[in-house]
Amino acid sequence: MRDFPEYLGTIATDLEARLDALLPTGNAIAEAMRWGTLGGGKRLRGFLVVESAALFDVSRDLALNTAAAIECLHAYSLIHDDLPCMDDDDLRRGRPTVHRRWDEATAVLAGDALQTQAFAILSDPATHPDPSVRIALVSALAAASGQGGMVGGQAMDIAAETAGRMLDLFEIRTLQALKTGALIRFAAQSGALLGQGDSTARDALTSYADALGAAFQIRDDLLDVDGDEAAAGKALNKDAQAGKATYVSLLGVDGARQKADELIAQAIFALKPFGTRADALADAARYTISRTT
Amino acid sequence: MRDFPEYLGTIATDLEARLDALLPTGNAIAEAMRWGTLGGGKRLRGFLVVESAALFDVSRDLALNTAAAIECLHAYSLIHDDLPCMDDDDLRRGRPTVHRRWDEATAVLAGDALQTQAFAILSDPATHPDPSVRIALVSALAAASGQGGMVGGQAMDIAAETAGRMLDLFEIRTLQALKTGALIRFAAQSGALLGQGDSTARDALTSYADALGAAFQIRDDLLDVDGDEAAAGKALNKDAQAGKATYVSLLGVDGARQKADELIAQAIFALKPFGTRADALADAARYTISRTT
Repeated sequence: MRDFPEYLGTIATDLEARLDALLPTGNAIAEAMRWGTLGGGKRLRGFLVVESAALFDVSRDLALNTAAAIECLHAYSLIHDDLPCMDDDDLRRGRPTVHRRWDEATAVLAGDALQTQAFAILSDPATHPDPSVRIALVSALAAASGQGGMVGGQAMDIAAETAGRMLDLFEIRTLQALKTGALIRFAAQSGALLGQGDSTARDALTSYADALGAAFQIRDDLLDVDGDEAAAGKALNKDAQAGKATYVSLLGVDGARQKADELIAQAIFALKPFGTRADALADAARYTISRTT
Repeated sequence: MRDFPEYLGTIATDLEARLDALLPTGNAIAEAMRWGTLGGGKRLRGFLVVESAALFDVSRDLALNTAAAIECLHAYSLIHDDLPCMDDDDLRRGRPTVHRRWDEATAVLAGDALQTQAFAILSDPATHPDPSVRIALVSALAAASGQGGMVGGQAMDIAAETAGRMLDLFEIRTLQALKTGALIRFAAQSGALLGQGDSTARDALTSYADALGAAFQIRDDLLDVDGDEAAAGKALNKDAQAGKATYVSLLGVDGARQKADELIAQAIFALKPFGTRADALADAARYTISRTT
Protein backbone atom coordinates (compact mmCIF):
# COMPACT_ATOMS: atom_id res chain seq x y z
CA MET A 1 0.00 0.00 0.00
CA ARG A 2 2.86 2.35 0.87
CA ASP A 3 4.09 2.14 -2.71
CA PHE A 4 0.67 2.16 -4.32
CA PRO A 5 0.75 5.73 -5.73
CA GLU A 6 4.12 4.85 -7.27
CA TYR A 7 2.71 1.66 -8.80
CA LEU A 8 -0.33 3.57 -10.10
CA GLY A 9 2.16 6.02 -11.62
CA THR A 10 3.98 3.31 -13.60
CA ILE A 11 0.72 2.26 -15.26
CA ALA A 12 -0.20 5.92 -15.88
CA THR A 13 3.16 6.45 -17.60
CA ASP A 14 2.71 3.42 -19.87
CA LEU A 15 -0.85 4.48 -20.63
CA GLU A 16 0.22 8.02 -21.46
CA ALA A 17 2.71 6.62 -24.00
CA ARG A 18 0.02 4.40 -25.53
CA LEU A 19 -2.44 7.30 -25.80
CA ASP A 20 0.27 9.43 -27.39
CA ALA A 21 0.79 6.72 -30.01
CA LEU A 22 -2.94 6.21 -30.68
CA LEU A 23 -4.16 9.81 -30.84
CA PRO A 24 -4.09 11.69 -34.17
CA THR A 25 -1.94 14.72 -34.95
CA GLY A 26 -2.01 17.40 -37.61
CA ASN A 27 -4.78 19.93 -37.01
CA ALA A 28 -6.48 21.96 -34.29
CA ILE A 29 -9.02 19.23 -33.47
CA ALA A 30 -6.23 16.65 -33.09
CA GLU A 31 -4.29 19.04 -30.84
CA ALA A 32 -7.40 19.69 -28.74
CA MET A 33 -8.03 15.93 -28.45
CA ARG A 34 -4.47 15.53 -27.13
CA TRP A 35 -4.81 18.50 -24.77
CA GLY A 36 -7.93 17.01 -23.24
CA THR A 37 -6.56 13.46 -22.96
CA LEU A 38 -2.80 13.61 -22.33
CA GLY A 39 -0.86 15.23 -19.50
CA GLY A 40 -2.25 13.97 -16.29
CA GLY A 41 -4.98 12.46 -14.26
CA LYS A 42 -4.59 9.49 -11.97
CA ARG A 43 -5.77 7.14 -14.73
CA LEU A 44 -7.81 5.15 -12.25
CA ARG A 45 -9.98 3.75 -15.05
CA GLY A 46 -6.94 2.68 -17.06
CA PHE A 47 -5.44 1.09 -13.94
CA LEU A 48 -8.65 -0.90 -13.39
CA VAL A 49 -8.49 -2.23 -16.95
CA VAL A 50 -4.84 -3.28 -16.64
CA GLU A 51 -5.18 -4.85 -13.18
CA SER A 52 -8.46 -6.64 -13.77
CA ALA A 53 -7.03 -8.01 -17.04
CA ALA A 54 -3.96 -9.23 -15.13
CA LEU A 55 -6.25 -11.48 -13.04
CA PHE A 56 -6.83 -13.44 -16.25
CA ASP A 57 -3.17 -13.45 -17.34
CA VAL A 58 -3.73 -10.74 -19.94
CA SER A 59 -0.50 -8.77 -20.45
CA ARG A 60 -0.29 -5.08 -19.64
CA ASP A 61 0.78 -4.48 -23.22
CA LEU A 62 -2.45 -5.97 -24.58
CA ALA A 63 -4.68 -4.34 -21.94
CA LEU A 64 -3.31 -0.86 -22.59
CA ASN A 65 -5.32 -0.39 -25.79
CA THR A 66 -8.60 -0.98 -23.95
CA ALA A 67 -7.34 1.29 -21.16
CA ALA A 68 -6.58 3.97 -23.76
CA ALA A 69 -10.07 3.62 -25.26
CA ILE A 70 -11.76 4.17 -21.91
CA GLU A 71 -9.51 7.17 -21.19
CA CYS A 72 -10.54 8.68 -24.57
CA LEU A 73 -14.18 8.15 -23.66
CA HIS A 74 -13.62 9.68 -20.21
CA ALA A 75 -11.73 12.66 -21.71
CA TYR A 76 -14.57 13.32 -24.18
CA SER A 77 -17.06 13.43 -21.29
CA LEU A 78 -14.87 15.90 -19.36
CA ILE A 79 -14.40 18.21 -22.38
CA HIS A 80 -18.16 18.36 -23.00
CA ASP A 81 -18.92 18.60 -19.25
CA ASP A 82 -16.65 21.66 -18.98
CA LEU A 83 -18.52 23.56 -21.76
CA PRO A 84 -20.22 26.86 -20.85
CA CYS A 85 -23.67 25.32 -21.42
CA MET A 86 -22.82 22.50 -18.97
CA ASP A 87 -20.56 23.06 -15.89
CA ASP A 88 -18.75 26.08 -17.40
CA ASP A 89 -15.29 25.24 -16.03
CA ASP A 90 -12.14 27.17 -16.96
CA LEU A 91 -9.60 24.84 -15.41
CA ARG A 92 -8.96 21.09 -15.63
CA ARG A 93 -5.87 19.33 -14.28
CA GLY A 94 -4.35 22.78 -13.67
CA ARG A 95 -4.65 23.88 -17.29
CA PRO A 96 -7.25 25.84 -19.29
CA THR A 97 -10.13 23.66 -20.47
CA VAL A 98 -10.38 22.97 -24.23
CA HIS A 99 -13.03 25.63 -24.92
CA ARG A 100 -10.92 28.21 -23.02
CA ARG A 101 -7.68 27.25 -24.79
CA TRP A 102 -9.41 27.11 -28.21
CA ASP A 103 -13.15 27.78 -28.53
CA GLU A 104 -16.50 26.08 -28.00
CA ALA A 105 -16.77 24.65 -31.51
CA THR A 106 -13.34 23.02 -31.16
CA ALA A 107 -14.33 21.60 -27.76
CA VAL A 108 -17.56 20.10 -29.15
CA LEU A 109 -15.74 18.54 -32.12
CA ALA A 110 -12.71 17.33 -30.12
CA GLY A 111 -15.06 15.61 -27.65
CA ASP A 112 -17.06 14.09 -30.51
CA ALA A 113 -13.89 12.78 -32.17
CA LEU A 114 -12.59 11.35 -28.87
CA GLN A 115 -15.76 9.33 -28.44
CA THR A 116 -15.31 8.00 -31.98
CA GLN A 117 -11.63 7.30 -31.24
CA ALA A 118 -12.60 5.13 -28.25
CA PHE A 119 -14.68 2.87 -30.51
CA ALA A 120 -12.03 2.94 -33.24
CA ILE A 121 -9.43 1.66 -30.75
CA LEU A 122 -11.70 -1.10 -29.42
CA SER A 123 -12.42 -2.33 -32.95
CA ASP A 124 -8.70 -2.54 -33.82
CA PRO A 125 -7.29 -6.11 -33.97
CA ALA A 126 -4.34 -4.85 -31.87
CA THR A 127 -6.79 -4.51 -28.95
CA HIS A 128 -7.61 -8.24 -28.98
CA PRO A 129 -7.11 -10.85 -31.71
CA ASP A 130 -10.62 -12.34 -31.25
CA PRO A 131 -13.40 -10.32 -32.98
CA SER A 132 -15.96 -11.69 -30.47
CA VAL A 133 -13.98 -10.13 -27.63
CA ARG A 134 -13.63 -6.82 -29.46
CA ILE A 135 -17.35 -6.61 -30.22
CA ALA A 136 -18.16 -7.48 -26.57
CA LEU A 137 -15.95 -4.55 -25.51
CA VAL A 138 -17.68 -2.20 -27.97
CA SER A 139 -21.10 -3.31 -26.78
CA ALA A 140 -20.22 -2.91 -23.08
CA LEU A 141 -18.62 0.50 -23.57
CA ALA A 142 -21.64 1.74 -25.55
CA ALA A 143 -24.00 0.51 -22.81
CA ALA A 144 -21.89 2.16 -20.08
CA SER A 145 -21.52 5.51 -21.78
CA GLY A 146 -24.83 6.21 -23.53
CA GLN A 147 -28.24 7.37 -22.50
CA GLY A 148 -28.66 4.34 -20.22
CA GLY A 149 -25.29 5.05 -18.54
CA MET A 150 -22.98 8.04 -18.28
CA VAL A 151 -25.01 10.48 -20.41
CA GLY A 152 -28.18 9.44 -18.57
CA GLY A 153 -26.50 10.43 -15.30
CA GLN A 154 -25.43 13.79 -16.69
CA ALA A 155 -29.00 14.35 -17.86
CA MET A 156 -30.34 13.63 -14.35
CA ASP A 157 -27.80 16.09 -12.96
CA ILE A 158 -28.86 18.85 -15.36
CA ALA A 159 -32.57 18.15 -14.85
CA ALA A 160 -32.20 18.56 -11.07
CA GLU A 161 -30.20 21.76 -11.53
CA THR A 162 -32.72 23.21 -14.01
CA ALA A 163 -35.57 22.40 -11.65
CA GLY A 164 -33.60 23.93 -8.74
CA ARG A 165 -34.37 20.78 -6.79
CA MET A 166 -32.10 19.09 -4.19
CA LEU A 167 -31.80 15.36 -4.82
CA ASP A 168 -32.23 12.88 -1.97
CA LEU A 169 -29.75 10.14 -1.09
CA PHE A 170 -31.38 7.51 -3.29
CA GLU A 171 -31.41 9.86 -6.27
CA ILE A 172 -27.77 10.90 -5.73
CA ARG A 173 -26.79 7.25 -5.61
CA THR A 174 -28.65 6.51 -8.85
CA LEU A 175 -27.22 9.57 -10.56
CA GLN A 176 -23.64 8.72 -9.60
CA ALA A 177 -24.03 5.04 -10.46
CA LEU A 178 -24.81 6.23 -14.00
CA LYS A 179 -22.66 9.35 -14.36
CA THR A 180 -19.35 8.00 -13.05
CA GLY A 181 -20.13 4.47 -11.86
CA ALA A 182 -21.00 2.93 -15.23
CA LEU A 183 -17.61 3.71 -16.77
CA ILE A 184 -15.69 2.53 -13.66
CA ARG A 185 -17.72 -0.68 -13.80
CA PHE A 186 -16.87 -1.12 -17.48
CA ALA A 187 -13.17 -0.57 -16.71
CA ALA A 188 -13.15 -3.40 -14.16
CA GLN A 189 -15.32 -5.68 -16.29
CA SER A 190 -13.23 -5.17 -19.40
CA GLY A 191 -10.45 -7.23 -17.80
CA ALA A 192 -12.82 -10.19 -17.59
CA LEU A 193 -13.87 -9.58 -21.21
CA LEU A 194 -10.25 -9.41 -22.42
CA GLY A 195 -9.39 -12.55 -20.42
CA GLN A 196 -12.66 -14.32 -21.27
CA GLY A 197 -13.36 -14.88 -17.58
CA ASP A 198 -16.46 -16.75 -16.39
CA SER A 199 -19.60 -15.17 -14.98
CA THR A 200 -18.50 -15.64 -11.35
CA ALA A 201 -15.38 -13.62 -12.03
CA ARG A 202 -17.39 -10.99 -13.90
CA ASP A 203 -19.90 -10.69 -11.06
CA ALA A 204 -17.12 -10.33 -8.48
CA LEU A 205 -15.50 -7.53 -10.49
CA THR A 206 -18.88 -5.84 -10.93
CA SER A 207 -19.50 -5.81 -7.16
CA TYR A 208 -15.99 -4.50 -6.57
CA ALA A 209 -16.35 -1.76 -9.17
CA ASP A 210 -19.78 -0.61 -8.00
CA ALA A 211 -18.60 -0.19 -4.40
CA LEU A 212 -15.35 1.41 -5.55
CA GLY A 213 -17.17 3.85 -7.85
CA ALA A 214 -19.50 5.00 -5.07
CA ALA A 215 -16.60 5.42 -2.61
CA PHE A 216 -14.64 7.33 -5.25
CA GLN A 217 -17.54 9.75 -5.66
CA ILE A 218 -17.91 10.26 -1.91
CA ARG A 219 -14.19 11.02 -1.66
CA ASP A 220 -14.62 13.53 -4.51
CA ASP A 221 -17.46 15.19 -2.59
CA LEU A 222 -15.29 15.33 0.56
CA LEU A 223 -12.37 16.81 -1.40
CA ASP A 224 -14.74 19.38 -2.87
CA VAL A 225 -15.30 20.57 0.71
CA ASP A 226 -11.82 20.28 2.27
CA GLY A 227 -9.43 19.67 -0.64
CA ASP A 228 -6.54 21.79 -1.88
CA GLU A 229 -7.51 23.73 -5.03
CA ALA A 230 -3.92 24.07 -6.28
CA ALA A 231 -3.27 20.33 -5.85
CA ALA A 232 -6.58 19.42 -7.50
CA GLY A 233 -5.93 21.68 -10.48
CA LYS A 234 -9.57 22.70 -10.71
CA ALA A 235 -12.07 24.89 -8.90
CA LEU A 236 -13.40 23.32 -5.70
CA ASN A 237 -16.38 23.95 -3.46
CA LYS A 238 -18.49 24.34 -6.60
CA ASP A 239 -21.24 21.99 -5.48
CA ALA A 240 -21.89 23.82 -2.22
CA GLN A 241 -21.84 27.17 -4.03
CA ALA A 242 -24.31 25.84 -6.57
CA GLY A 243 -26.51 24.53 -3.76
CA LYS A 244 -26.25 20.99 -5.13
CA ALA A 245 -26.97 17.98 -2.97
CA THR A 246 -23.93 15.72 -2.44
CA TYR A 247 -23.11 12.80 -0.17
CA VAL A 248 -21.52 15.33 2.19
CA SER A 249 -24.50 17.70 2.30
CA LEU A 250 -26.83 14.74 2.90
CA LEU A 251 -24.73 12.67 5.33
CA GLY A 252 -22.38 15.26 6.86
CA VAL A 253 -18.58 14.98 6.69
CA ASP A 254 -18.34 12.17 9.26
CA GLY A 255 -21.31 10.28 7.85
CA ALA A 256 -19.84 10.48 4.34
CA ARG A 257 -16.43 9.23 5.59
CA GLN A 258 -18.08 6.32 7.34
CA LYS A 259 -20.11 5.42 4.26
CA ALA A 260 -16.96 5.47 2.11
CA ASP A 261 -15.19 3.18 4.60
CA GLU A 262 -18.07 0.71 4.44
CA LEU A 263 -18.03 0.73 0.65
CA ILE A 264 -14.29 0.09 0.55
CA ALA A 265 -14.70 -2.88 2.90
CA GLN A 266 -17.38 -4.20 0.50
CA ALA A 267 -15.13 -3.64 -2.52
CA ILE A 268 -12.26 -5.54 -0.91
CA PHE A 269 -14.55 -8.36 0.19
CA ALA A 270 -15.77 -8.78 -3.39
CA LEU A 271 -12.17 -9.51 -4.46
CA LYS A 272 -11.86 -12.60 -2.18
CA PRO A 273 -12.25 -15.17 -5.00
CA PHE A 274 -9.09 -13.83 -6.64
CA GLY A 275 -6.88 -14.18 -3.52
CA THR A 276 -3.59 -12.30 -3.41
CA ARG A 277 -3.62 -11.77 -7.18
CA ALA A 278 -6.08 -8.94 -6.56
CA ASP A 279 -3.85 -7.15 -4.02
CA ALA A 280 -3.30 -4.16 -6.32
CA LEU A 281 -7.06 -3.78 -6.84
CA ALA A 282 -7.57 -3.89 -3.06
CA ASP A 283 -4.83 -1.28 -2.65
CA ALA A 284 -6.63 0.88 -5.21
CA ALA A 285 -9.78 0.71 -3.10
CA ARG A 286 -7.89 1.81 0.04
CA TYR A 287 -6.13 4.54 -1.91
CA THR A 288 -9.44 5.82 -3.26
CA ILE A 289 -10.56 7.03 0.17
CA SER A 290 -7.15 8.20 1.42
CA ARG A 291 -6.20 10.25 -1.67
CA THR A 292 -5.85 14.01 -1.28
CA THR A 293 -6.35 14.96 -4.97
CA MET B 1 -36.99 6.29 -62.28
CA ARG B 2 -40.50 7.78 -62.42
CA ASP B 3 -41.40 5.93 -59.21
CA PHE B 4 -38.06 6.40 -57.51
CA PRO B 5 -39.15 8.95 -54.86
CA GLU B 6 -41.98 6.56 -53.96
CA TYR B 7 -39.55 3.64 -53.66
CA LEU B 8 -37.19 5.77 -51.56
CA GLY B 9 -40.20 6.58 -49.39
CA THR B 10 -40.97 2.90 -48.69
CA ILE B 11 -37.46 2.38 -47.33
CA ALA B 12 -37.67 5.62 -45.33
CA THR B 13 -40.92 4.38 -43.75
CA ASP B 14 -39.42 1.03 -42.76
CA LEU B 15 -36.32 2.78 -41.44
CA GLU B 16 -38.38 5.22 -39.39
CA ALA B 17 -40.15 2.28 -37.74
CA ARG B 18 -36.83 0.59 -36.98
CA LEU B 19 -35.39 3.80 -35.49
CA ASP B 20 -38.51 4.22 -33.39
CA ALA B 21 -37.99 0.70 -32.01
CA LEU B 22 -34.28 1.16 -31.35
CA LEU B 23 -34.21 4.63 -29.78
CA PRO B 24 -34.64 5.00 -25.99
CA THR B 25 -37.59 6.69 -24.27
CA GLY B 26 -38.20 8.04 -20.82
CA ASN B 27 -36.37 11.33 -20.22
CA ALA B 28 -35.56 14.64 -21.88
CA ILE B 29 -32.37 13.36 -23.50
CA ALA B 30 -34.22 10.39 -25.00
CA GLU B 31 -36.95 12.72 -26.30
CA ALA B 32 -34.33 15.04 -27.81
CA MET B 33 -32.59 12.07 -29.45
CA ARG B 34 -35.92 11.10 -31.04
CA TRP B 35 -36.67 14.69 -32.09
CA GLY B 36 -33.34 14.94 -33.87
CA THR B 37 -33.55 11.53 -35.55
CA LEU B 38 -37.20 10.73 -36.31
CA GLY B 39 -39.69 12.57 -38.44
CA GLY B 40 -38.20 13.08 -41.79
CA GLY B 41 -35.29 13.42 -44.06
CA LYS B 42 -34.88 11.56 -47.33
CA ARG B 43 -32.84 8.86 -45.57
CA LEU B 44 -30.43 8.66 -48.50
CA ARG B 45 -27.77 7.06 -46.30
CA GLY B 46 -30.20 4.43 -45.04
CA PHE B 47 -31.33 3.76 -48.61
CA LEU B 48 -27.70 3.22 -49.67
CA VAL B 49 -27.21 0.66 -46.89
CA VAL B 50 -30.36 -1.26 -47.78
CA GLU B 51 -29.77 -1.23 -51.55
CA SER B 52 -26.07 -2.01 -51.47
CA ALA B 53 -26.80 -4.87 -49.06
CA ALA B 54 -29.46 -6.18 -51.46
CA LEU B 55 -26.72 -6.64 -54.10
CA PHE B 56 -25.36 -9.39 -51.85
CA ASP B 57 -28.76 -10.93 -51.08
CA VAL B 58 -28.91 -9.36 -47.62
CA SER B 59 -32.55 -8.85 -46.61
CA ARG B 60 -33.95 -5.37 -45.97
CA ASP B 61 -34.93 -6.52 -42.49
CA LEU B 62 -31.32 -7.33 -41.60
CA ALA B 63 -29.87 -4.24 -43.29
CA LEU B 64 -32.21 -1.85 -41.48
CA ASN B 65 -30.24 -2.02 -38.21
CA THR B 66 -27.08 -0.84 -39.93
CA ALA B 67 -29.14 1.80 -41.73
CA ALA B 68 -30.54 2.94 -38.38
CA ALA B 69 -27.03 3.14 -36.90
CA ILE B 70 -25.81 5.40 -39.68
CA GLU B 71 -28.91 7.61 -39.36
CA CYS B 72 -28.20 7.97 -35.60
CA LEU B 73 -24.64 8.98 -36.43
CA HIS B 74 -25.87 11.44 -39.07
CA ALA B 75 -28.48 12.89 -36.69
CA TYR B 76 -25.84 13.41 -33.98
CA SER B 77 -23.70 15.37 -36.44
CA LEU B 78 -26.66 17.58 -37.43
CA ILE B 79 -27.64 18.31 -33.81
CA HIS B 80 -24.09 19.38 -32.94
CA ASP B 81 -23.66 21.22 -36.26
CA ASP B 82 -26.78 23.29 -35.52
CA LEU B 83 -25.44 24.49 -32.12
CA PRO B 84 -24.91 28.24 -31.61
CA CYS B 85 -21.12 27.76 -31.46
CA MET B 86 -21.21 25.96 -34.82
CA ASP B 87 -23.70 26.88 -37.59
CA ASP B 88 -26.27 28.39 -35.18
CA ASP B 89 -29.37 27.10 -36.98
CA ASP B 90 -32.88 27.46 -35.59
CA LEU B 91 -34.66 25.21 -38.05
CA ARG B 92 -34.10 21.65 -39.30
CA ARG B 93 -36.58 19.68 -41.40
CA GLY B 94 -39.11 22.45 -40.79
CA ARG B 95 -38.95 22.16 -36.99
CA PRO B 96 -36.98 23.91 -34.24
CA THR B 97 -33.50 22.46 -33.80
CA VAL B 98 -32.82 20.53 -30.57
CA HIS B 99 -31.09 23.41 -28.77
CA ARG B 100 -34.00 25.73 -29.69
CA ARG B 101 -36.66 23.22 -28.60
CA TRP B 102 -34.77 22.34 -25.38
CA ASP B 103 -31.41 23.99 -24.61
CA GLU B 104 -27.74 23.72 -25.53
CA ALA B 105 -26.83 21.24 -22.80
CA THR B 106 -29.59 18.89 -23.95
CA ALA B 107 -28.42 19.23 -27.56
CA VAL B 108 -24.81 18.40 -26.65
CA LEU B 109 -25.87 15.35 -24.60
CA ALA B 110 -28.47 14.11 -27.10
CA GLY B 111 -25.87 14.28 -29.87
CA ASP B 112 -23.33 12.49 -27.68
CA ALA B 113 -25.81 9.74 -26.83
CA LEU B 114 -26.82 9.33 -30.50
CA GLN B 115 -23.21 8.71 -31.46
CA THR B 116 -23.00 6.07 -28.71
CA GLN B 117 -26.31 4.61 -29.89
CA ALA B 118 -24.91 4.12 -33.40
CA PHE B 119 -22.10 1.94 -32.05
CA ALA B 120 -24.46 0.16 -29.66
CA ILE B 121 -26.68 -0.83 -32.60
CA LEU B 122 -23.75 -2.03 -34.73
CA SER B 123 -22.47 -4.21 -31.87
CA ASP B 124 -25.88 -5.87 -31.38
CA PRO B 125 -26.11 -9.49 -32.67
CA ALA B 126 -29.42 -8.51 -34.34
CA THR B 127 -27.39 -6.36 -36.75
CA HIS B 128 -25.45 -9.36 -38.08
CA PRO B 129 -24.94 -12.82 -36.57
CA ASP B 130 -21.19 -12.87 -37.33
CA PRO B 131 -19.08 -10.89 -34.79
CA SER B 132 -16.38 -10.35 -37.48
CA VAL B 133 -18.92 -8.52 -39.63
CA ARG B 134 -20.15 -6.42 -36.71
CA ILE B 135 -16.65 -5.39 -35.71
CA ALA B 136 -15.84 -4.52 -39.35
CA LEU B 137 -18.90 -2.25 -39.37
CA VAL B 138 -17.83 -0.58 -36.10
CA SER B 139 -14.32 -0.05 -37.41
CA ALA B 140 -15.51 1.40 -40.74
CA LEU B 141 -18.06 3.72 -39.10
CA ALA B 142 -15.45 4.98 -36.62
CA ALA B 143 -13.01 5.68 -39.46
CA ALA B 144 -15.68 7.48 -41.50
CA SER B 145 -16.96 9.67 -38.69
CA GLY B 146 -13.93 10.62 -36.61
CA GLN B 147 -11.12 13.09 -36.91
CA GLY B 148 -9.92 11.43 -40.13
CA GLY B 149 -13.44 11.65 -41.63
CA MET B 150 -16.59 13.65 -40.90
CA VAL B 151 -15.29 15.59 -37.88
CA GLY B 152 -12.05 16.35 -39.78
CA GLY B 153 -14.16 17.92 -42.54
CA GLN B 154 -16.14 20.01 -40.04
CA ALA B 155 -12.85 21.16 -38.53
CA MET B 156 -11.58 22.27 -41.98
CA ASP B 157 -14.83 24.16 -42.49
CA ILE B 158 -14.53 25.99 -39.16
CA ALA B 159 -10.82 26.72 -39.68
CA ALA B 160 -11.54 28.38 -43.04
CA GLU B 161 -14.40 30.38 -41.55
CA THR B 162 -12.31 31.51 -38.56
CA ALA B 163 -9.50 32.57 -40.86
CA GLY B 164 -12.03 34.35 -43.11
CA ARG B 165 -10.43 32.58 -46.05
CA MET B 166 -12.22 31.39 -49.21
CA LEU B 167 -11.32 27.80 -50.05
CA ASP B 168 -10.30 26.84 -53.58
CA LEU B 169 -11.88 24.02 -55.56
CA PHE B 170 -9.37 21.40 -54.46
CA GLU B 171 -9.89 22.33 -50.80
CA ILE B 172 -13.69 22.32 -51.13
CA ARG B 173 -13.52 18.87 -52.68
CA THR B 174 -11.31 17.58 -49.83
CA LEU B 175 -13.52 19.17 -47.19
CA GLN B 176 -16.70 17.68 -48.63
CA ALA B 177 -15.13 14.27 -49.19
CA LEU B 178 -14.55 14.23 -45.42
CA LYS B 179 -17.53 16.16 -44.04
CA THR B 180 -20.33 14.44 -45.97
CA GLY B 181 -18.55 12.04 -48.35
CA ALA B 182 -17.05 9.70 -45.74
CA LEU B 183 -20.42 8.75 -44.24
CA ILE B 184 -22.06 8.30 -47.67
CA ARG B 185 -19.13 6.07 -48.63
CA PHE B 186 -19.58 4.04 -45.44
CA ALA B 187 -23.29 3.66 -46.18
CA ALA B 188 -22.61 2.14 -49.60
CA GLN B 189 -19.70 0.02 -48.37
CA SER B 190 -21.65 -1.36 -45.42
CA GLY B 191 -23.75 -3.40 -47.84
CA ALA B 192 -20.60 -5.18 -49.01
CA LEU B 193 -19.57 -5.69 -45.37
CA LEU B 194 -22.98 -7.11 -44.41
CA GLY B 195 -22.96 -9.36 -47.50
CA GLN B 196 -19.25 -10.22 -47.17
CA GLY B 197 -18.64 -9.10 -50.75
CA ASP B 198 -15.20 -9.35 -52.34
CA SER B 199 -12.77 -6.45 -52.86
CA THR B 200 -13.90 -5.86 -56.48
CA ALA B 201 -17.45 -5.29 -55.27
CA ARG B 202 -16.26 -3.09 -52.43
CA ASP B 203 -14.14 -0.98 -54.79
CA ALA B 204 -17.05 -0.56 -57.20
CA LEU B 205 -19.32 0.64 -54.41
CA THR B 206 -16.62 2.99 -53.15
CA SER B 207 -16.27 4.62 -56.59
CA TYR B 208 -20.04 4.89 -56.87
CA ALA B 209 -20.39 6.43 -53.40
CA ASP B 210 -17.57 8.93 -53.84
CA ALA B 211 -19.04 10.28 -57.09
CA LEU B 212 -22.56 10.26 -55.63
CA GLY B 213 -21.44 12.09 -52.48
CA ALA B 214 -19.76 14.85 -54.45
CA ALA B 215 -22.79 15.23 -56.76
CA PHE B 216 -25.09 15.31 -53.74
CA GLN B 217 -23.08 18.17 -52.26
CA ILE B 218 -23.09 20.14 -55.52
CA ARG B 219 -26.88 19.75 -55.69
CA ASP B 220 -27.08 21.00 -52.09
CA ASP B 221 -25.02 24.05 -53.06
CA LEU B 222 -27.32 24.67 -56.06
CA LEU B 223 -30.42 24.33 -53.87
CA ASP B 224 -28.88 26.76 -51.40
CA VAL B 225 -28.95 29.30 -54.23
CA ASP B 226 -32.25 28.57 -55.98
CA GLY B 227 -34.15 26.20 -53.66
CA ASP B 228 -37.47 26.68 -51.89
CA GLU B 229 -36.96 27.48 -48.20
CA ALA B 230 -40.38 26.20 -47.14
CA ALA B 231 -39.88 22.91 -48.99
CA ALA B 232 -36.35 22.52 -47.61
CA GLY B 233 -37.50 23.18 -44.05
CA LYS B 234 -34.32 25.10 -43.22
CA ALA B 235 -32.73 28.48 -43.92
CA LEU B 236 -31.20 28.73 -47.40
CA ASN B 237 -28.70 31.03 -49.05
CA LYS B 238 -26.63 30.87 -45.86
CA ASP B 239 -23.36 30.08 -47.61
CA ALA B 240 -23.51 33.10 -49.89
CA GLN B 241 -24.49 35.33 -46.99
CA ALA B 242 -21.57 33.98 -44.97
CA GLY B 243 -19.25 34.58 -47.91
CA LYS B 244 -18.31 30.89 -47.99
CA ALA B 245 -16.84 29.28 -51.07
CA THR B 246 -19.06 26.58 -52.58
CA TYR B 247 -19.07 24.62 -55.82
CA VAL B 248 -21.49 27.23 -57.18
CA SER B 249 -19.40 30.26 -56.19
CA LEU B 250 -16.32 28.60 -57.70
CA LEU B 251 -17.81 27.06 -60.87
CA GLY B 252 -20.92 29.18 -61.46
CA VAL B 253 -24.43 27.68 -61.66
CA ASP B 254 -23.94 26.15 -65.13
CA GLY B 255 -20.45 24.87 -64.31
CA ALA B 256 -21.72 23.28 -61.09
CA ARG B 257 -24.62 21.60 -62.92
CA GLN B 258 -22.25 20.22 -65.55
CA LYS B 259 -19.87 18.91 -62.88
CA ALA B 260 -22.74 17.18 -61.09
CA ASP B 261 -23.86 15.56 -64.38
CA GLU B 262 -20.35 14.22 -64.96
CA LEU B 263 -20.17 12.81 -61.45
CA ILE B 264 -23.52 11.06 -61.83
CA ALA B 265 -22.33 9.47 -65.08
CA GLN B 266 -19.26 8.24 -63.20
CA ALA B 267 -21.36 6.90 -60.35
CA ILE B 268 -23.61 4.96 -62.72
CA PHE B 269 -20.61 3.62 -64.67
CA ALA B 270 -19.12 2.28 -61.43
CA LEU B 271 -22.23 0.12 -60.94
CA LYS B 272 -21.69 -1.80 -64.24
CA PRO B 273 -20.36 -4.99 -62.56
CA PHE B 274 -23.69 -5.42 -60.73
CA GLY B 275 -25.86 -5.23 -63.90
CA THR B 276 -29.57 -4.57 -63.49
CA ARG B 277 -29.48 -5.52 -59.81
CA ALA B 278 -28.06 -2.06 -59.17
CA ASP B 279 -30.89 -0.22 -60.97
CA ALA B 280 -32.20 1.36 -57.76
CA LEU B 281 -28.72 2.66 -56.89
CA ALA B 282 -28.44 4.13 -60.41
CA ASP B 283 -31.88 5.73 -59.98
CA ALA B 284 -30.68 7.22 -56.69
CA ALA B 285 -27.77 8.82 -58.52
CA ARG B 286 -30.09 10.37 -61.14
CA TYR B 287 -32.50 11.49 -58.41
CA THR B 288 -29.67 13.13 -56.46
CA ILE B 289 -29.18 15.80 -59.10
CA SER B 290 -32.85 16.25 -60.03
CA ARG B 291 -34.20 16.58 -56.47
CA THR B 292 -35.71 19.90 -55.46
CA THR B 293 -35.34 19.49 -51.66
